[in-house]
Amino acid sequence: MFLTRTEYDRGVNTFSPEGRLFQVEYAIEAIKLGSTAIGLKTKDGVVLAVEKRITSPLLEPSSVEKIMEIDEHIGCAMSGLIADARTLVEHARVETQNHRFSYGEPMTVESTTQALCDLALQFGEGDEESMSRPFGVSLLIAGHDENGPSLYYTDPSGTFWQCNAKAIGSGSKGADSSLQEQYNKDLTLQEAETIALSILKQVMEEKVTPNNVDIARVAPTFHLYTPSEVEAVITRL
Amino acid sequence: MFLTRTEYDRGVNTFSPEGRLFQVEYAIEAIKLGSTAIGLKTKDGVVLAVEKRITSPLLEPSSVEKIMEIDEHIGCAMSGLIADARTLVEHARVETQNHRFSYGEPMTVESTTQALCDLALQFGEGDEESMSRPFGVSLLIAGHDENGPSLYYTDPSGTFWQCNAKAIGSGSKGADSSLQEQYNKDLTLQEAETIALSILKQVMEEKVTPNNVDIARVAPTFHLYTPSEVEAVITRL
Amino acid sequence: MFLTRTEYDRGVNTFSPEGRLFQVEYAIEAIKLGSTAIGLKTKDGVVLAVEKRITSPLLEPSSVEKIMEIDEHIGCAMSGLIADARTLVEHARVETQNHRFSYGEPMTVESTTQALCDLALQFGEGDEESMSRPFGVSLLIAGHDENGPSLYYTDPSGTFWQCNAKAIGSGSKGADSSLQEQYNKDLTLQEAETIALSILKQVMEEKVTPNNVDIARVAPTFHLYTPSEVEAVITRL
Amino acid sequence: MFLTRTEYDRGVNTFSPEGRLFQVEYAIEAIKLGSTAIGLKTKDGVVLAVEKRITSPLLEPSSVEKIMEIDEHIGCAMSGLIADARTLVEHARVETQNHRFSYGEPMTVESTTQALCDLALQFGEGDEESMSRPFGVSLLIAGHDENGPSLYYTDPSGTFWQCNAKAIGSGSKGADSSLQEQYNKDLTLQEAETIALSILKQVMEEKVTPNNVDIARVAPTFHLYTPSEVEAVITRL
Amino acid sequence: MFLTRTEYDRGVNTFSPEGRLFQVEYAIEAIKLGSTAIGLKTKDGVVLAVEKRITSPLLEPSSVEKIMEIDEHIGCAMSGLIADARTLVEHARVETQNHRFSYGEPMTVESTTQALCDLALQFGEGDEESMSRPFGVSLLIAGHDENGPSLYYTDPSGTFWQCNAKAIGSGSKGADSSLQEQYNKDLTLQEAETIALSILKQVMEEKVTPNNVDIARVAPTFHLYTPSEVEAVITRL
Amino acid sequence: MFLTRTEYDRGVNTFSPEGRLFQVEYAIEAIKLGSTAIGLKTKDGVVLAVEKRITSPLLEPSSVEKIMEIDEHIGCAMSGLIADARTLVEHARVETQNHRFSYGEPMTVESTTQALCDLALQFGEGDEESMSRPFGVSLLIAGHDENGPSLYYTDPSGTFWQCNAKAIGSGSKGADSSLQEQYNKDLTLQEAETIALSILKQVMEEKVTPNNVDIARVAPTFHLYTPSEVEAVITRL
Amino acid sequence: MFLTRTEYDRGVNTFSPEGRLFQVEYAIEAIKLGSTAIGLKTKDGVVLAVEKRITSPLLEPSSVEKIMEIDEHIGCAMSGLIADARTLVEHARVETQNHRFSYGEPMTVESTTQALCDLALQFGEGDEESMSRPFGVSLLIAGHDENGPSLYYTDPSGTFWQCNAKAIGSGSKGADSSLQEQYNKDLTLQEAETIALSILKQVMEEKVTPNNVDIARVAPTFHLYTPSEVEAVITRL
Repeated sequence: MFLTRTEYDRGVNTFSPEGRLFQVEYAIEAIKLGSTAIGLKTKDGVVLAVEKRITSPLLEPSSVEKIMEIDEHIGCAMSGLIADARTLVEHARVETQNHRFSYGEPMTVESTTQALCDLALQFGEGDEESMSRPFGVSLLIAGHDENGPSLYYTDPSGTFWQCNAKAIGSGSKGADSSLQEQYNKDLTLQEAETIALSILKQVMEEKVTPNNVDIARVAPTFHLYTPSEVEAVITRL
Repeated sequence: MFLTRTEYDRGVNTFSPEGRLFQVEYAIEAIKLGSTAIGLKTKDGVVLAVEKRITSPLLEPSSVEKIMEIDEHIGCAMSGLIADARTLVEHARVETQNHRFSYGEPMTVESTTQALCDLALQFGEGDEESMSRPFGVSLLIAGHDENGPSLYYTDPSGTFWQCNAKAIGSGSKGADSSLQEQYNKDLTLQEAETIALSILKQVMEEKVTPNNVDIARVAPTFHLYTPSEVEAVITRL
Repeated sequence: MFLTRTEYDRGVNTFSPEGRLFQVEYAIEAIKLGSTAIGLKTKDGVVLAVEKRITSPLLEPSSVEKIMEIDEHIGCAMSGLIADARTLVEHARVETQNHRFSYGEPMTVESTTQALCDLALQFGEGDEESMSRPFGVSLLIAGHDENGPSLYYTDPSGTFWQCNAKAIGSGSKGADSSLQEQYNKDLTLQEAETIALSILKQVMEEKVTPNNVDIARVAPTFHLYTPSEVEAVITRL
Repeated sequence: MFLTRTEYDRGVNTFSPEGRLFQVEYAIEAIKLGSTAIGLKTKDGVVLAVEKRITSPLLEPSSVEKIMEIDEHIGCAMSGLIADARTLVEHARVETQNHRFSYGEPMTVESTTQALCDLALQFGEGDEESMSRPFGVSLLIAGHDENGPSLYYTDPSGTFWQCNAKAIGSGSKGADSSLQEQYNKDLTLQEAETIALSILKQVMEEKVTPNNVDIARVAPTFHLYTPSEVEAVITRL
Repeated sequence: MFLTRTEYDRGVNTFSPEGRLFQVEYAIEAIKLGSTAIGLKTKDGVVLAVEKRITSPLLEPSSVEKIMEIDEHIGCAMSGLIADARTLVEHARVETQNHRFSYGEPMTVESTTQALCDLALQFGEGDEESMSRPFGVSLLIAGHDENGPSLYYTDPSGTFWQCNAKAIGSGSKGADSSLQEQYNKDLTLQEAETIALSILKQVMEEKVTPNNVDIARVAPTFHLYTPSEVEAVITRL
Repeated sequence: MFLTRTEYDRGVNTFSPEGRLFQVEYAIEAIKLGSTAIGLKTKDGVVLAVEKRITSPLLEPSSVEKIMEIDEHIGCAMSGLIADARTLVEHARVETQNHRFSYGEPMTVESTTQALCDLALQFGEGDEESMSRPFGVSLLIAGHDENGPSLYYTDPSGTFWQCNAKAIGSGSKGADSSLQEQYNKDLTLQEAETIALSILKQVMEEKVTPNNVDIARVAPTFHLYTPSEVEAVITRL
Repeated sequence: MFLTRTEYDRGVNTFSPEGRLFQVEYAIEAIKLGSTAIGLKTKDGVVLAVEKRITSPLLEPSSVEKIMEIDEHIGCAMSGLIADARTLVEHARVETQNHRFSYGEPMTVESTTQALCDLALQFGEGDEESMSRPFGVSLLIAGHDENGPSLYYTDPSGTFWQCNAKAIGSGSKGADSSLQEQYNKDLTLQEAETIALSILKQVMEEKVTPNNVDIARVAPTFHLYTPSEVEAVITRL
């Protein structure tokens, strides 16, 4: 059984006899090794919170970017291979800017997410911008457009779902259960910040400090919290 | 025997000694893992009903799209890899729009289906739009044109058939038997809705709610039922 | 012996030590799995008859197309992979239309057959329109041109022969023997219809009905029989 | 020993440790499976005679073309894969027509042969017109130009030789010995016809009839014998 | 276990079942074989110090370049395959010059680092400038721009981090611990020079001389120390 | 040992652990199977003599070309795969003609040889004119230019040497020893002819006749001996 | 261990688990099979001396070129595959001529060396001029520019070093030790000639003659010694 399996899993884009695409499944494994990220949608906006693994005290914490702005109304948190995420985000930035230029209005959050996933789906196809393997990264895409706030979750297969709340990365299993318990649609943005950080605190091995977590909101524009704003949320816990 | 088989099944487009194309057969397996979808043709229009697997209460049900509009007179239900389906539907949308633009009239349902299958057949050929593996998805294409309502069924090999009623996905075997028992050509659209949903109910593990099924009709234009319209059909069961 | 054989048969276009091309031979196997088709040439025209496998009563029999028109004076019956046949027929239709446009006269049946076979021969060559594997289909091409009626038979290697009568598909062996016994050059078109259908009846497992066979003639233009015309032939048996 | 050999023989264009190119040798094997063809040069012209394998009485003998005209002063007989031969002949026809168009005179027989062999040599090179494997066919090229009549023999390696008489195909070994015994430079064209057919008769399993042999001469223009002309030669035996 | 691993690690860009990219990890191994390099950021500028392995007394020490200028405000130290580093540095030089030409101002250190990493990430993609394997080199990029001095560290996966101090190469483990003990943000440039060289001295097998170490600073412009300047630092130890 | 070797020798352009290129060595083996060719340089010109293997009395000896003219002042003798040699000679003919056209003077013998070897070296590189394997042929290139007569020897690796006398092909070992014994710089052209033919006679299995050897000289222009001129040399032996 | 190794060493550009590139290491082995070459830099210029393996007395010694001029101020000695060296030298000649043409001044020796190594590094990348394997050659590049005389040493990995003296090829180990003993910076050009030849004499199996060694100097222009000049150096030993 195991031998048979290894025979299919190296072809980047080949079905196994059971109809599975192993390279995509292995890329999903890469994300399970990644740091945890959490997103919550409230009626006032979306909150993103991520763990940053600071492996050395000499590392500059602000250079470990796990939350990035895509456009002024869209941001994303990531887990998995950071260099892969950078390629996807860069692609999304170009798409959203082109959209503004062509149509004179911001791209919707769903269209932006779909553009990201179209690129992710093309792996192994030899196209210009696509990669020869799946992108080893999951994203939580937070945005705010004419339909109000929204939160999307993407995986390496190029599939995406809209969620009220979602966790990705190594601590996602526990974090997702906690989110289901604590989430309700009437949360304020401040309550969402507190929930996100308290759940992140549970799944992290180290003490939470402004150095090893990042928080951002899209409400209705993207804002990455300053260390003192993060400190304030920590104090509230 | 088994060893011999594994030697052929990774070449995406190679015949086995018995004249089989294994990658296509494996892609068909991928669909057997998918959610169930059902289509019924009546003289007044076509009904599509699909199961939606909502893996978490925090997932936005409306973002799990398993029925999509292709043109105002054509829609489709899908089972298998959703990201693959999106590529096929996007291709069909461009084809139908081009047709309207070039000829000033809607594309027939059969031509649209054939355009979809032409793309599906090209896997492994290194063409611009085609993939390096078969598309891991089956579609039920519902439409209404100058020949009245019609329902088509496509599989990963790029073959298509016209049907009066058809089920695809993990529950297709049981659902197809039920359809053969209950189908007749004089069904009203409302009766078709009821049959589709009652059969879907049998093959689903969970209780049917407006959150975990989608229903649509093409009669003569595509309409995706609102949660309350779905609720109404559930009540009728 | 068997091991040695498997080492050659996956290279799509590689000779084995005995000078054989296995992928072509395997594609020919694919046809032996296909439904049976029969062609007979008479002095008044050519008759084609095919078995249609209707796997479900909900399938629309007319959508299982195994006889297709190429030009108004040429049609063909097929056995094997239907999606492959569609590509070949589509190619032939473009060729015959181009010929009419360029020369103001219909393309001869032989030239049309040769154009089809040229495409079939190019598999594995990486050309625009060609496939990466042999076409898994055989065709019986019936036509009528300035040389009168003619019947051609093509196989996956890109070779073709002119015949007076020929059967292809899973029942071809028995059907060919019957054809040799019953064929003579002075058959009328009606006698040819009867012979074709009676032989088809012998090799089919199910009862012959207008739903599960198709008949066509080119005499001198292509005509696909309506269900009632098929019914009439069945009655004559 | 055998294992080592199989490791080299699938690379279409790779030397084995002994300096051999196995794919070319295997293509030559393909020709040993082919029908026998014979050529004889006389001072008045060249005679070609081939065996046609008519596998069924319903096959139209004239559609089994094993002798083809290249230009009005050049023809060829073939043994091996007929579809491959068709590609080579088509190439030679274009070359000879281009030559007439550019220089206002017929192409010499040697230049035509060389053009054919240049194409044959390019296999595996990924060029426009070339194939990914050697051409599995040998040709006897008969022609008449300013140097009088000539007969060339080509093999799958792209090599050619000029001969007075030569046999190719499954019966070539016996036929070549007979030719060496019976050939002399003063044969008349009629004597050459008789020798060619009598040798063909020895190596064929079936009785010789106008249906299962073809004869042609280039003296000085290409002429394929009609059935009655063939009958006349048979009668002379 | 070991066998399974070897099956994944040769595909340059394929995930293993655990979600790992082995070729990148092996390239990181290449760096562990390399000579040690150290970088320290102070408020006045950045110091780089590298070990040079002079394998023969006849080698010209100045030709063993392990610290290179990228632009007048950016330099880098390297460990791993020198020829690979040269390609990356050459790419960065072009980027910074283009930036000056297009925008009339120097490129920021972060943008320069990102441009380097974008190239590093593209390995295996068949693009113009990219390589078919990961670049087997790590860089310490020292720069000074409108945000003051900064130090970046890149690895073969195309990821980068900003650091206060960092060591790479065979002695990096011990050197990193020493840096964490001795580093503080208020170091003067001269103290940084002394720390860098004293740590390098600990990890080198040979006696430190102006011949076998290189020192450079960016404060605010790049300056590679002359042998006598290096001698002065050695004397201070 | 043997197994390890076979693992390297199929990659057309891959080094073995000992730094060898096996495909080139195997191509050199191909030449050891070839017919013998001999070249001698005298102060008055260069003599080439080759064995022709006439496998059948019906073969036209003059069509077995083993000595070919490149330009009026350069000719070559070959051993190995004749079709490969034809490609090289054709390339050299174009180069020498282009040189005459561009510079109004003949190309030197060394430049012509280098142009041939440049093409030979490019095997496996996917260039326009190059092959996917080494050319399986050695050449003796005889010429006469402003530096007087010269003789070059090329092998499949694209290397060439200038010689006073040299033998290639299956009999080269014995022939080279004889040449070293009998050669001196003061030979007349006639003496060189005699030596070349007498050595060829020793290594050939058959009796030497004007049919199975070819002789040519470049003194100072290329001249292929007529059968009677060859007869005259044979008589002198 | 050995098996694992063989699994990595055929991929031309793949890291082994220890971070090694085996094809480059094997190419370096190719050079250890090559003839010995020696270079010495003096304040007045650079001396190159090479062993020439004259395998037959009939070989023209001057055609075994192991020292070649690149530009009038640069020359190089080589060891390894001569045909590979020719490609590199040809590339360098074009680069230096282009530089003269574009800038009106000679290219520096370091830039020329870097241009050579850039080409060497690109192996396996599928670029226009690059090869599919590493170049199997090392060069000693001697030159004289505005910075005075210089000697560079390149290896197949595309790395280069500046040296005072260096030996390459099969005798390099012993020769390098001798060079370290005998070299000092105040050598005259004549002393350097004597040292180079005396060391070459030690590592050569045959007696040194003007036929089997070549000597050249760049002081400040390239000059290849005539046989009598070589004789003079030999006499001095």
